[in-house]
Amino acid sequence: MLKSFVLSTLLVMLQTTAWAKPAAQVSSPEGALTIAIELDPDGRASYSVQRMGVPVIVPSHLGFIFANAPKFDRGLTVTAQAPRSVDDTWEQPWGEARTVRNRFNELRVTLTERNGPRRHIDLLLRAYDDGVALRYVFPDQPCLQDVKIAEELTEFSIATPGTAWWLPAFEWNREEYLYHRTRIEEVGQAQTPMTLRLDNGLHLSVHEAALIDYAGMNLTRVEARRFRAALTPGVGDAKVARRAPFSTPWRMLQIADSAAGLVASRLILNLNEPNALGDVSWFKPMKYVGIWWEMHLGRSSWASGAKHGATTANAIRHIDFAARHGFGGVLIEGWNRGWDGDWFGNGADFDFTRAYDDFDLEKVAAYAKARGVQIIGHHETGGNAAHYERQLAAGLDLYARLGVGTVKTGYVADAGQARVIGADGKDHFAWHESQDMARHHLLVVQEAAKRHIAVNPHEPIKDTGLRRTYPNWVSREGARGMEFNAWGRPGNPPEHETNLVFTRMLAGPMDFTPGVFGMKTNSPDGVATTWAKQLALYVVLYSPIQMAADLLENYEAHPAPFQFIKDVPVDWDETRVLNGEVGDYVTIARRNRHSRDWYLGAITDENGRVLSAPLGFLEPGQRYRAQIYRDAPHANWKDAREAIVIEERIVTSADTLRLQLAPGGGQAIRFQFLGPRP
Amino acid sequence: MLKSFVLSTLLVMLQTTAWAKPAAQVSSPEGALTIAIELDPDGRASYSVQRMGVPVIVPSHLGFIFANAPKFDRGLTVTAQAPRSVDDTWEQPWGEARTVRNRFNELRVTLTERNGPRRHIDLLLRAYDDGVALRYVFPDQPCLQDVKIAEELTEFSIATPGTAWWLPAFEWNREEYLYHRTRIEEVGQAQTPMTLRLDNGLHLSVHEAALIDYAGMNLTRVEARRFRAALTPGVGDAKVARRAPFSTPWRMLQIADSAAGLVASRLILNLNEPNALGDVSWFKPMKYVGIWWEMHLGRSSWASGAKHGATTANAIRHIDFAARHGFGGVLIEGWNRGWDGDWFGNGADFDFTRAYDDFDLEKVAAYAKARGVQIIGHHETGGNAAHYERQLAAGLDLYARLGVGTVKTGYVADAGQARVIGADGKDHFAWHESQDMARHHLLVVQEAAKRHIAVNPHEPIKDTGLRRTYPNWVSREGARGMEFNAWGRPGNPPEHETNLVFTRMLAGPMDFTPGVFGMKTNSPDGVATTWAKQLALYVVLYSPIQMAADLLENYEAHPAPFQFIKDVPVDWDETRVLNGEVGDYVTIARRNRHSRDWYLGAITDENGRVLSAPLGFLEPGQRYRAQIYRDAPHANWKDAREAIVIEERIVTSADTLRLQLAPGGGQAIRFQFLGPRP
Repeated sequence: MLKSFVLSTLLVMLQTTAWAKPAAQVSSPEGALTIAIELDPDGRASYSVQRMGVPVIVPSHLGFIFANAPKFDRGLTVTAQAPRSVDDTWEQPWGEARTVRNRFNELRVTLTERNGPRRHIDLLLRAYDDGVALRYVFPDQPCLQDVKIAEELTEFSIATPGTAWWLPAFEWNREEYLYHRTRIEEVGQAQTPMTLRLDNGLHLSVHEAALIDYAGMNLTRVEARRFRAALTPGVGDAKVARRAPFSTPWRMLQIADSAAGLVASRLILNLNEPNALGDVSWFKPMKYVGIWWEMHLGRSSWASGAKHGATTANAIRHIDFAARHGFGGVLIEGWNRGWDGDWFGNGADFDFTRAYDDFDLEKVAAYAKARGVQIIGHHETGGNAAHYERQLAAGLDLYARLGVGTVKTGYVADAGQARVIGADGKDHFAWHESQDMARHHLLVVQEAAKRHIAVNPHEPIKDTGLRRTYPNWVSREGARGMEFNAWGRPGNPPEHETNLVFTRMLAGPMDFTPGVFGMKTNSPDGVATTWAKQLALYVVLYSPIQMAADLLENYEAHPAPFQFIKDVPVDWDETRVLNGEVGDYVTIARRNRHSRDWYLGAITDENGRVLSAPLGFLEPGQRYRAQIYRDAPHANWKDAREAIVIEERIVTSADTLRLQLAPGGGQAIRFQFLGPRP
Repeated sequence: MLKSFVLSTLLVMLQTTAWAKPAAQVSSPEGALTIAIELDPDGRASYSVQRMGVPVIVPSHLGFIFANAPKFDRGLTVTAQAPRSVDDTWEQPWGEARTVRNRFNELRVTLTERNGPRRHIDLLLRAYDDGVALRYVFPDQPCLQDVKIAEELTEFSIATPGTAWWLPAFEWNREEYLYHRTRIEEVGQAQTPMTLRLDNGLHLSVHEAALIDYAGMNLTRVEARRFRAALTPGVGDAKVARRAPFSTPWRMLQIADSAAGLVASRLILNLNEPNALGDVSWFKPMKYVGIWWEMHLGRSSWASGAKHGATTANAIRHIDFAARHGFGGVLIEGWNRGWDGDWFGNGADFDFTRAYDDFDLEKVAAYAKARGVQIIGHHETGGNAAHYERQLAAGLDLYARLGVGTVKTGYVADAGQARVIGADGKDHFAWHESQDMARHHLLVVQEAAKRHIAVNPHEPIKDTGLRRTYPNWVSREGARGMEFNAWGRPGNPPEHETNLVFTRMLAGPMDFTPGVFGMKTNSPDGVATTWAKQLALYVVLYSPIQMAADLLENYEAHPAPFQFIKDVPVDWDETRVLNGEVGDYVTIARRNRHSRDWYLGAITDENGRVLSAPLGFLEPGQRYRAQIYRDAPHANWKDAREAIVIEERIVTSADTLRLQLAPGGGQAIRFQFLGPRP
C-alpha cells in the first residue's frame, strides 16, 4: 500500500481518543446537554454529545458522498459560527398537549473545504434540555448546486454499552415487525426511531425530524456501538437528488433519565416548522368504527362478490351504530373498484372515483351526513403511488364534495416495490421511505389540505413530526397494528404495545385500531391482552383518530366495558407519563381538552404488575368520580382476558391508586370532574 | 394494515421452523454436505446447508430487487432440475500446489414465476466435500433482458452461534482495517471473506468466487445470525447492470472441521473457469526488492525533488543488489510524472509513459536486462481508473517493449472516490469493488496478458479466485500490508498475520511484502514481530511474487537471516497446513516446485507457543538438512525481536520438531533434500 503521511496522521485520530478541542459547541438552556463539533488534523468533521460532562455520543463523523462531485468529508475548516436562542410556546390545533414549549440554543457552523472551489455546507446544531439535533444546510453555491447524494456519512457512536429496542431495516414487510431487544452491539440494520437504554441509566431515542424531499434514514451498525446513516435508496443514480439551497432532515437524539422522559418529550414537534396551513379547525379529532375487522377475520372481503363487505346496507348499519353511540366516523374499506385482481404491490386497477355496484356512495354519504356522521374515506394504492397521483385530484374532489373529512390511504406492497413517477415522467419502483415517496406523501397531504381533508396513511413513510407543519396529517400506521391479531402467526405478543409506546409512538400518532373484545381470531393466540388493556390502549397509544375496531355485535353484547370507549376523548389538553420501562409497562394520564376530566391508561407486558399512581395531576381540592376498568384478580391474557371489574370511587389529587395489572393486562380510568366537596 | 391471507401464511413460514420438504437438493461426493432449496407456500425460495445432518445454514432467502422490473422473490416454482457430477484434476501454472482436484455434484434448478410472463432464473448449486456454492444464472428471456439489479436478496443465516473474524465494509479505507473478532451476533457490516468458528467447532468462510462484471458482495447482518448480501453501489440507477444471459459470481461457503481445513481448501479456484490465457510460462514467480520502503519510512519521496527515490542511480543500486543476491525483480515506484500535485484520489496528472528527469527509464531497463533482472513496473492511478484506461495501452506497450514482466498497479483513493468511465462515456465516481471497477481490473489484466505482463493491483478489488482463469493476475494487496508498520498508528499488531492467514488469504495470494529487519519505524511499535517471524511469513503468506521489503543495507548487514529470504522459493508443488487456530497461530509446510526441498513457516500472535510439527510430509526414507531460523529463548516482539538462532540438523519424515515460538514470533525452516542415508 502506498500511503501519504496525511493518512497516517488521520489514523491517529480515528484510533485513539486524542481529540482536539472542539471547533464549535453549543449547550442547552439549562446546560445539561452540549453538542460539539471537532475537526481532526486531516480536516474531517465529527460531532459529539455530552450530558452534564458525561459522553453520550463520542466523536461521530459527518459528511457526504456524492454521485456527481467529490465527497465532502476531508480538508474542512470552520469558517463561521452564528448562535441563536429561542424560547417560545406554541399551541397545537389538536394533540396530546395543548401547548408546547420550544426552548433551545442553536449554533450555525459553516464547514468550508480548504482546497479546490472551497465548497461549504452549514451544520445547524440545536441543544434542547431534552435532546439535541443537527441538520446540514446546503447553501446556494455554484460548485454544488445539483446535489446528488450517494451516501450520507453521518454516524452515531454511542458512548456507553446498553440495550436497544429496534426493528430491522430494508426488510420486505417494511415497518411491520416485532421489536428486537438486544445489546447495542447486537443491533443489525435498524429503522428509526431506535430506543436505547444505556447501562448508566440514560435513555436515548435516535430518529429524524422533518423528513421533507429527502430519503428516510435507517441505521447500519458498522462495528461495536458505531452506527452510520443508511439512506433509503432512490430512483436514479442517487439516494437524494436536490437542487441547492436545501436542508436535510434533522438528525435527532432524545435524551432522558427515564423511559417516561422520552415519552414526555416534544422534541420532534419542536424541530418541525410551524403550522403552514393556518386554521385547521375543519379537522375534528374523533373516534370511528368501520368495515375493516370483518375482512381481517375473513368474514367478508374487500373484493366484490357474495362476501363483499362494503355494501350499502353494511355501511348504513355502521352509520346507525356510530350515530347511536357517538362515534364521529365510519371507515369503509373495499368500496371502490380495483380489488378483484392482483392489487397487492400493483394497484393499477384501483379506481378512486367509481364504487362497486353494491355500494351506493352518494346514498351512503347523504345518509351519513343526515345522521351527523363522517365517512372516513379509503384510498388503497397497492403501493402504486404513481397511479394514485394520476387520480389524486379526482379522488379527493369526490370526497370533498361528499363531506368526507378524513382519508385513510394504504400502500400495501413489499418494500422496494412501491411505484412512483420519476423525474423522467415514467413509473419507477421505489422504497416506501425513498425521497420520491417522501415527496408523494407530502403531495397527498397538501392536496388534501386544500380540500379540508385529513390524511391517515397506512404502510406509510415514517412519522418525523410533520403534523406540526401540516396538521391535517393526523395519524398513520407504521408498525404492527391490531390486524396482526386477526391472522398473524404470531400475532402481537403482550409486550408489543409496551414496546410501541417507547419506540414507534415517540415518532407520533399511530392508528393502531384498539378496542377488540372478540379475543378469538385466526391468529393462534388471538388478541393477546385482557379487555382492560384494550381499553387502556385508548389513553396509552395517542392518536387524534381512534378506531373502535371490533365487530359491532361485540360492542352491543358488552355495553359495560364499551362505555369507556364511548367516553374516552381523542384530544388532550395535557399529558403526564406517571411511570414506565421500555417494553415492560407504562402509565399515562391525559386531560380532556374539552372538559376537566382526566383519563388514565396503564398497560403491562406478559408480566402482572402492581403500579402506584399518585393522582397529583388532578386539580387540588377537587373531587373526581373514578370510573375504573380493571383486570379481575384472576384475569390474564391466556385464559381470562374478559375478566374485568368495573367500579367507581371518589378520589382527589391527594390519593394514590394501586393499579394491579394482570399478565398481559391493563387498567383504564375516567376521572370525571365533580367539583369541590359540596 | 390491510393484508391478504397469502401474507399471513407467509408469516408462518418466516417465523416458525415448519419448512416444507426440499424442492431440490444435492449432496457432496462423499455425502458430508447437502445444499437444499425450499419453497414456502407463498413461493419464496430459500436454500439451506447441512453437514452430516447438522444444519450449517438454516433456510436463507434468495432473490433480487430490480430497478427496472418487479422483484424476483415470490410466487416461484421449481420447473426443472438438471444434475451433473465432475471429478477431474487440473494443474496450476504456478501456485501453492501443482495439482488441484475438482470434484463436485452440481444441480441446476430452474425457478419460474407462477404468474405474469413466467420469468425464470436458474440456480446453480454445487456441493463439494469442502464447501458449497450457489450462483444465479440469468437466461436469455424477452421479459428480463436488460437486467438492472437494485439489490441481491441472498441471505446467509448461520445455524449455530459462534465467533466471527471480519473487516467492516463500506469504510473510507477500503480493505485496510484490523480484524474484528466478535460473536457472530455482534458483526456489523462485513467484507468477505468473513471467517466463522461456530461453537460446535465447525469453521466457515463466507465469500464469493468468480466476480466478473458484477458488484462485489459485502454482508449486512440484519438481525441475530442472519446476513444479507450488500452489493457494492454502482454508477447509475442499479448496483449491477447487465444484459442477459449472464451468471452472478458464486456465493461460496468453505466448511471445515478445523481452521487448517479452511486454508487447505482450493474451493475458490475450483469455482472459477479454467485458464483462458493458454501458455503463461512467460510469467515467472519471483522475489523482488524495490524502491518502496524508503518512501514509507520518509527517507525519500515519490514526488520529484531532492528526496526523489526513483533516480537512475538508486534503481541501478537495486538492480545490482538483486542480481548479486538472486532476486528476479526490482520494483521502482515514483518513476513517472504525476506525483507532485494532489494525486491522492485524483490521479489526473499521472503520465504512464513519461519518466521524471532524474530517472532514465531506457537506461535502467537496459541495465536490468543486462544483469538478468526484471523491472517491476508501477502504475499508481490515485484511484482514477478512467484516466488510467485512457493511457493503458500506451503504458503497457512501453513496459512490454522494455521487458517489464509484472506491473504493480495502485488505486489510492478513499472508498467511493475511485473514478471510472461510465456507460455514457463520462467519468463517474465509483467504489473500489463496484461493477465498473470489476470490469476495469479485468480489462487491465486482459490487456496486460496480451503483452505477456502480469498484474499485481494494490487497493484492489477483492480476490475471488480469478487467477485460475487469468493466471497473469498474480497477486494483489487487499488488506493491511507491511507499510502500516512504517507509519501506522497503530501498526499491525502481532496477531495481524495470524488473522490474515484465515481470512484475507483464503481469497488468494497477497503481496504483503514481508522481510523487514529494521524494526524501528515511525509507527509506535515499529515492526511488531521477531525476525524469525519475518522469515516465516515467506512460507505462511503465499504469493507467487514476494518482496524483500526492507532497505538493502539492512540485508547487507545481516547476511545470516537474509539467507533464508534468498533461499525460499515462491512456487510450490504441494502445501500442507500442519496446525492452526484463527488469529492465534499456524504452521504451513510447502514443497518447492522445482526441487525436492520442503519449507516450513510457523507464526504466532502475541502469545508464545510450543507447537509440534511432525515431519511426515517429507519423503520417507530420505534425509534432509533442516536449516532452522528460530526465535532465541528470550526473543519477543517487544524488546528482543532480533534474537534469532540459526542452526542445522539432519531430519527424516519420522521426526517431529518442537517449534518454540516467542511472543510475536515464528520459525522458518528449509528442509534441504539430501537423499537416502549414504
